[in-house]
Amino acid sequence: MNFLKRTDTCGNLRKEDCDKIVILNGWVQTVRDLGGLIFIDLRDRYGITQLVIHPETQAELAERSKEIKSEFVIWAKGKVRMRENPNPNIPTGLIEIQLEDFGIINKAELPPFEIVDDIGTSEEIKLKYRFLDLRRHSLQKQFIVRNDVYQVVHKYFNENNFIEVETPFLMKSTPEGARDYLVPSRIYKGRFYALPQSPQLYKQILMMAGFDRYVQIVKCFRDEDLRSDRQPEFTQIDLEMSFIEREDVLSMTEGFFARLWKEVLGIEVLTPFLRMSYDEAMNRYGSDKPDLRFEIELTDVSDIVKNSEFKVFSDTVNGGGVVKVLNAKGCADFSRKKIDELTELAKKYGAKGIAWLKIVDGEINSPIAKFLKQNEIEEIKKRTNCENGDLLLFSSDIWARACTILGALRLEIAKQTGIIDAVKNKFSFLWILDFPLLEFDEDSGRYAAMHHPFTSPMDEDISLLDSEPAKARAKAYDVVINGAEVGGGSIRIHNREIQEKMFNLLGLSKEEADSKFGFLLEALKYGCPPHGGIALGLDRIVMILTGTENIRDVIAFPKTTSGLSLMDGAPSNVDDIQLKELGIKLIE
Amino acid sequence: MNFLKRTDTCGNLRKEDCDKIVILNGWVQTVRDLGGLIFIDLRDRYGITQLVIHPETQAELAERSKEIKSEFVIWAKGKVRMRENPNPNIPTGLIEIQLEDFGIINKAELPPFEIVDDIGTSEEIKLKYRFLDLRRHSLQKQFIVRNDVYQVVHKYFNENNFIEVETPFLMKSTPEGARDYLVPSRIYKGRFYALPQSPQLYKQILMMAGFDRYVQIVKCFRDEDLRSDRQPEFTQIDLEMSFIEREDVLSMTEGFFARLWKEVLGIEVLTPFLRMSYDEAMNRYGSDKPDLRFEIELTDVSDIVKNSEFKVFSDTVNGGGVVKVLNAKGCADFSRKKIDELTELAKKYGAKGIAWLKIVDGEINSPIAKFLKQNEIEEIKKRTNCENGDLLLFSSDIWARACTILGALRLEIAKQTGIIDAVKNKFSFLWILDFPLLEFDEDSGRYAAMHHPFTSPMDEDISLLDSEPAKARAKAYDVVINGAEVGGGSIRIHNREIQEKMFNLLGLSKEEADSKFGFLLEALKYGCPPHGGIALGLDRIVMILTGTENIRDVIAFPKTTSGLSLMDGAPSNVDDIQLKELGIKLIE
Repeated sequence: MNFLKRTDTCGNLRKEDCDKIVILNGWVQTVRDLGGLIFIDLRDRYGITQLVIHPETQAELAERSKEIKSEFVIWAKGKVRMRENPNPNIPTGLIEIQLEDFGIINKAELPPFEIVDDIGTSEEIKLKYRFLDLRRHSLQKQFIVRNDVYQVVHKYFNENNFIEVETPFLMKSTPEGARDYLVPSRIYKGRFYALPQSPQLYKQILMMAGFDRYVQIVKCFRDEDLRSDRQPEFTQIDLEMSFIEREDVLSMTEGFFARLWKEVLGIEVLTPFLRMSYDEAMNRYGSDKPDLRFEIELTDVSDIVKNSEFKVFSDTVNGGGVVKVLNAKGCADFSRKKIDELTELAKKYGAKGIAWLKIVDGEINSPIAKFLKQNEIEEIKKRTNCENGDLLLFSSDIWARACTILGALRLEIAKQTGIIDAVKNKFSFLWILDFPLLEFDEDSGRYAAMHHPFTSPMDEDISLLDSEPAKARAKAYDVVINGAEVGGGSIRIHNREIQEKMFNLLGLSKEEADSKFGFLLEALKYGCPPHGGIALGLDRIVMILTGTENIRDVIAFPKTTSGLSLMDGAPSNVDDIQLKELGIKLIE
Repeated sequence: MNFLKRTDTCGNLRKEDCDKIVILNGWVQTVRDLGGLIFIDLRDRYGITQLVIHPETQAELAERSKEIKSEFVIWAKGKVRMRENPNPNIPTGLIEIQLEDFGIINKAELPPFEIVDDIGTSEEIKLKYRFLDLRRHSLQKQFIVRNDVYQVVHKYFNENNFIEVETPFLMKSTPEGARDYLVPSRIYKGRFYALPQSPQLYKQILMMAGFDRYVQIVKCFRDEDLRSDRQPEFTQIDLEMSFIEREDVLSMTEGFFARLWKEVLGIEVLTPFLRMSYDEAMNRYGSDKPDLRFEIELTDVSDIVKNSEFKVFSDTVNGGGVVKVLNAKGCADFSRKKIDELTELAKKYGAKGIAWLKIVDGEINSPIAKFLKQNEIEEIKKRTNCENGDLLLFSSDIWARACTILGALRLEIAKQTGIIDAVKNKFSFLWILDFPLLEFDEDSGRYAAMHHPFTSPMDEDISLLDSEPAKARAKAYDVVINGAEVGGGSIRIHNREIQEKMFNLLGLSKEEADSKFGFLLEALKYGCPPHGGIALGLDRIVMILTGTENIRDVIAFPKTTSGLSLMDGAPSNVDDIQLKELGIKLIE
């Protein structure tokens, strides 16, 4: 061995350790030669400790220390003593090590960026040199929290009789919604495995196999066109329970979050969480994942404008749509440009435009005022609690779109007016319940499952499957924290006939259903227990716990939005021989 | 909800619960109608409980119960009472439930095999109906032990300051040895990700990033031609530590196994484990993973036969080979046929044949006796402690092959003579140390890494890399339990020049090394700490803990030896559209 092994870490020495002879191992953060004194800050995962050399009495050490540069790996031996100038910002700030000897374990070239917490380096460079970026304590902190989350999952669910079971990564391709990542089989040429988008079917099979309670922290994969907050591989806390109803899954999940917030942040979370139906969330907040840390709500004014001479409104209402209003309190001073920007945002959600009305100095100011009767305006003002200085934003559209558009504006207004900043240390937990079972997909002209095809309809809505399937509600639930959906689940179908009817509603022929999900239908023949569960987004939960908006802060080796690993260059070219063995070739 | 939810499980009721009114949910194991009494055994993960109906006083229940068949899912309500005929074989055997009401939650068709512990059903049928096979308590037990293993891993390493970090599944293809499973990229057509054969490089990167101690339970993938004890995806307990030497990894690992055996089996394992060099293990036991639960050893007789007139022996020794002997005690009664079978086994390991010599009624019986001098035979007998009734098996070959051949025969003899059976409840833990760094691969005509290319040579052997690389030993170690290698690891190279020299020795040009491992070489520039670790085979460990020889008993959804999932039919055909999107097509 070519180094002296540490007796302590760079984070654990305190004033009680004074006069101890210690050995530390770590990375050199900085070397400061003040002439009379040389200071070396030594860093490891556990902290930073200051080493001191006195050149007057330690000429040889001082001379050797000239070779040391930032990020060198060294061992350092010396005596702990109190600092003359304590640093109150770090836990080791009261002490320093009077250096007696040291050795260089490994040298370092000048790194492309300094290892400090606040760095302006581009994300691209940081990802390329991830091994350096990850040395920052501010980033390591994320992974220590992430580790805490794993530990709480393991403990909590074990205490509640869940069994961790590993489900396969090389599974059958049954794409629904997102694309599968495929893995060619070498032995069965022309055939492919798929990486799991979720272990959904396997966890249901485990319930049918009598495992009763299952949990797994599991990687899932979706080959989607990535958005900035998505990664091709992501981590779920996946669970399933038998002989239960919705209430059991909700309370088990609430218990988990309460335990997690308590152990990681020391915060007591009140349970049960607030609950809201999908309809109510959409109506009041324009979102199925509303941020309830602030109060702004939407108002429906359809009845007021139903017979209005303003045809945009009255035609919409009479055509089955709605007119909804968001009162942006105190935003009457928004410039025309700002309102144009809000309009652009609304268009992203399908709006053709937005109508607005503001009250400035007691006067109505609105391009649509001239089309509205005085009593219509008065009623709208009254219902929306519109006062001097307020800005009303209107959306007239089919119900879901009108809600969604104003829901997006609600968040944007909250951001622009500083409301989000003011509530950033609050946590709001919420269940969204009573989702529709199906949604009509206009592209394919058929129904799609809102949750997934294995979600049970509400008992009282089963008869609707034959008559008005669009009206059937699902035994599905989402858990929302601060406006982010952190998990979703459902009670599953445990009856073979209903599962077949569901596949049929989704436009799968009997042959297609058998070819894709035959093993599930087969398993449903032999005594399936009532069961349900939930999948929680671990990456998102860690982001909320650590207060970061960047998903790459909580994944050790993340990919870019186009799926590149900048550090190692994956995906990369492979040998033709490898492809030939797999029975595939590239399309020219 | 269409069932009464359980108040208890089918495993927790005891005589103290008598007179309680309880509700159970579960699967019907059997219905026995004895005329005067109807018994229903109800099963769940937790156990089996007997339900009783008295047809005389419970005519309606008795009538309804006629519909119930095996594997029906029911709820059952009734009063706990003592059994007249207790069943001492199950924990709930003292009590039964006097049924008051029940309901069928889900029906079941007649299953293709009965859900009992000992079933003669073919493996193929069991895998196809895995959801039924997994209902057997004997199989569920494996996964409860597996869950216990996870829990010990999470606790033990967390207590020792390890951080669980997830490494990527979609990584760069750097095949070494086994084939990678490839995943085509849709966005970068013609390029591929690989599924990890191990997170080796990422865990080393984590050490370079200062994470200090890393652990992960992680799926790994190898596209090999499968043997019966291999699966395309398998699970490792993967760990790595910084600022340590070999001893630290060994004792951390020993602590883990001691904790595991204690918590799962209640057995105290003595630490430190026995240690043996690779050379010694090969010489004495003919294996780098010797089963030390029994004593049989090999003997080297090269010096005795060096000048023998039996040319097969003397030529081998004079050509640099060895002549080794296994004394199969008491096996002189092995028939010619049995010896022929041993010869066939030896041939699998590269033997051209095996010579033998037995002593029957004090007389030498051997086809080679006529070529050996009396004093040669006497010396061989003496050295091998060969007595009347013994059978000596000879292997003359190059050292490694001669050892391996007799090592295989050693195990076979132990099996055939009942020795293995006699020691099956013993556990023998062993470290194999001081492996060669390289092995010469005759196919490719170059050196291959015995462990992997990142393993550090012994400090004192570094100079051999230039002169006699074949003689250099590695800082590598394997942990062996009962003759099974359950893990291997090493101290890694943390010096860039040595890593480059290693790649060079393995025949990688600078360009190849840069293209495959450039990011590792780059990371080694910026201050890499001394580090090392180990990867433990979780599947194998669970097999040893539960005493099964079948890897499919410890994997919930295993594949066949050709990589098929018989339950869901993976791998399967996929749409041409999917392939086109990925930029690949099948070779006709």
